[in-house]
Amino acid sequence: MAVYTDIDDEELRAFVAEYDIGTVTGLKGIAEGVENTNYLLRTDRGSYILTIYEKRVDPNDLPFFLGLLDHLANRGVPCPPTLHGRDGKALRQVAGKPAAIVTFLQGIWPKRPRAVHCGEVGAALARMHIAGLDFPHTRHNSLSLDGWSQLVEATASRADEVAPGLGAEIAREYEDISGHWPIDLPTGVIHADLFPDNVFFMDDELTGLIDFYFACTDALAYDLAICLNAWCFERGAEFNITKARRLLSAYRDVRPVSEAELDALPLLARGSALRFLLTRLYDWLNQVDGAMVKPKDPLEYLHKMRFHRRIGGPGAYGLD
Amino acid sequence: MAVYTDIDDEELRAFVAEYDIGTVTGLKGIAEGVENTNYLLRTDRGSYILTIYEKRVDPNDLPFFLGLLDHLANRGVPCPPTLHGRDGKALRQVAGKPAAIVTFLQGIWPKRPRAVHCGEVGAALARMHIAGLDFPHTRHNSLSLDGWSQLVEATASRADEVAPGLGAEIAREYEDISGHWPIDLPTGVIHADLFPDNVFFMDDELTGLIDFYFACTDALAYDLAICLNAWCFERGAEFNITKARRLLSAYRDVRPVSEAELDALPLLARGSALRFLLTRLYDWLNQVDGAMVKPKDPLEYLHKMRFHRRIGGPGAYGLD
Repeated sequence: MAVYTDIDDEELRAFVAEYDIGTVTGLKGIAEGVENTNYLLRTDRGSYILTIYEKRVDPNDLPFFLGLLDHLANRGVPCPPTLHGRDGKALRQVAGKPAAIVTFLQGIWPKRPRAVHCGEVGAALARMHIAGLDFPHTRHNSLSLDGWSQLVEATASRADEVAPGLGAEIAREYEDISGHWPIDLPTGVIHADLFPDNVFFMDDELTGLIDFYFACTDALAYDLAICLNAWCFERGAEFNITKARRLLSAYRDVRPVSEAELDALPLLARGSALRFLLTRLYDWLNQVDGAMVKPKDPLEYLHKMRFHRRIGGPGAYGLD
Repeated sequence: MAVYTDIDDEELRAFVAEYDIGTVTGLKGIAEGVENTNYLLRTDRGSYILTIYEKRVDPNDLPFFLGLLDHLANRGVPCPPTLHGRDGKALRQVAGKPAAIVTFLQGIWPKRPRAVHCGEVGAALARMHIAGLDFPHTRHNSLSLDGWSQLVEATASRADEVAPGLGAEIAREYEDISGHWPIDLPTGVIHADLFPDNVFFMDDELTGLIDFYFACTDALAYDLAICLNAWCFERGAEFNITKARRLLSAYRDVRPVSEAELDALPLLARGSALRFLLTRLYDWLNQVDGAMVKPKDPLEYLHKMRFHRRIGGPGAYGLD
């Protein structure tokens, strides 16, 4: 929710001149996305998103992310293809930082997702997983077990400032989840952050998936578990089984899910809840003075983690 | 630089349906403007700015602001006219707050204004002043002497936290300025906040003036003094006489400036510097935890105030 990097007029002109997109008629910083600076760039030919990659993104990962967008868009997944400059490159520099331009996607993200949105997301996620199967590059999920272990350690001494007993509960949960984490499920490219603000709709039809900057190679069912957490809880943290059923069955209509994947789902969902609990907790405990981003409530994910821990099996998600 | 108010999908649909602008194809929060929430709204018919007025704007002032935009736009001033709903109203509510839609203006604001921009701004300011002369409504400038006096008091005990001796300097300056403040200069509608980020250009031609939410009735030359401060200092706080000459002479080519106005200019410029010093100082001393807006440096305006105090007369601005 911030613009971290300003672009000088001359610099903008020179940067845009590297592309075949006409002349600039507008540039507005977008108050969305917490990791990077995003501008809505308008030219006399169309609208684009100009992203400047800030320090939380490893520049070495950018060819993976940008290549993935092109790969998926070429296969019909509704995600924004990158613009390539006159030299053929999608990744260049502006204001001394890596930057890229992608096509502007129509649609708005749902502030209060309904079951119909969950169905659309399930189907799109499955299509993305299939389209990604022949993507030739891989990227380690730095926010899986090893990343969690570091975050458990980094937050342990102060977790109880947020809720009494939280540190111990996280430690127990991490032990339990990491001891049983499935390692033989089908893997591929996952989005890993497919929250409602990363999915656009028009008239309840999905028009775009954005923000692939956590994408990595991991168990496909783990992505499904992330979506269960992101889409199927109400604001009061109650699980909405109707939404989960819609999301899962729409996914399975496109990509069949194995018994092993289904059985693993509650554990994957606990792990996914732990992942967001940990990153939010870390950000909460390490707020920067004058930061322009409001940290998200870590406890939302504590409640979700407890829910998945307590259910008897994947049937609780409305599966037939 | 923030989105303070989210709009639910249903609410957005209902709100936009009050206008004859087609169906929504996009909505992005804009990371500009510190007072209100601004969205770039796209429909299948065009692009608009949807503004939600937050608590720093007095709802009673909104008819003045919105009426002024229509009045000026009708007279050819390049500012965004408001959209009127099917019921004829420009001001309505969304998410429980006052809101309005204005036309999207092409152009980008200059990050590093050059002399050519200063000339364009001077001419546009003069045209705006003339166009506003027959605007039938008035609004008291709450950030003139009486407002300053309150801010002097509110910041006095802690001003020295920002710079040693600042409190005493402000008190002396306020006494001196208010004791000599001119009261018989030509008045009319002034913008009162015409900083570079409120002026759009394309290819060095001015395409739009925005953000009239400090507009009020006051001495026209005071607006000119605000622009001298906002446009004619370099980043190191050195005064750029070439820029001032361009700004003032372009203004005078459109609207003749009286001797009395010219003579008053250094004092008006000191007053304008004091005004922004005080509001920035107040915001600096009253930072809200977790605020999404970075306060601006008050001392920039202390240096500007000292510059205007030390000059011999309006000749220092490059006037012939």
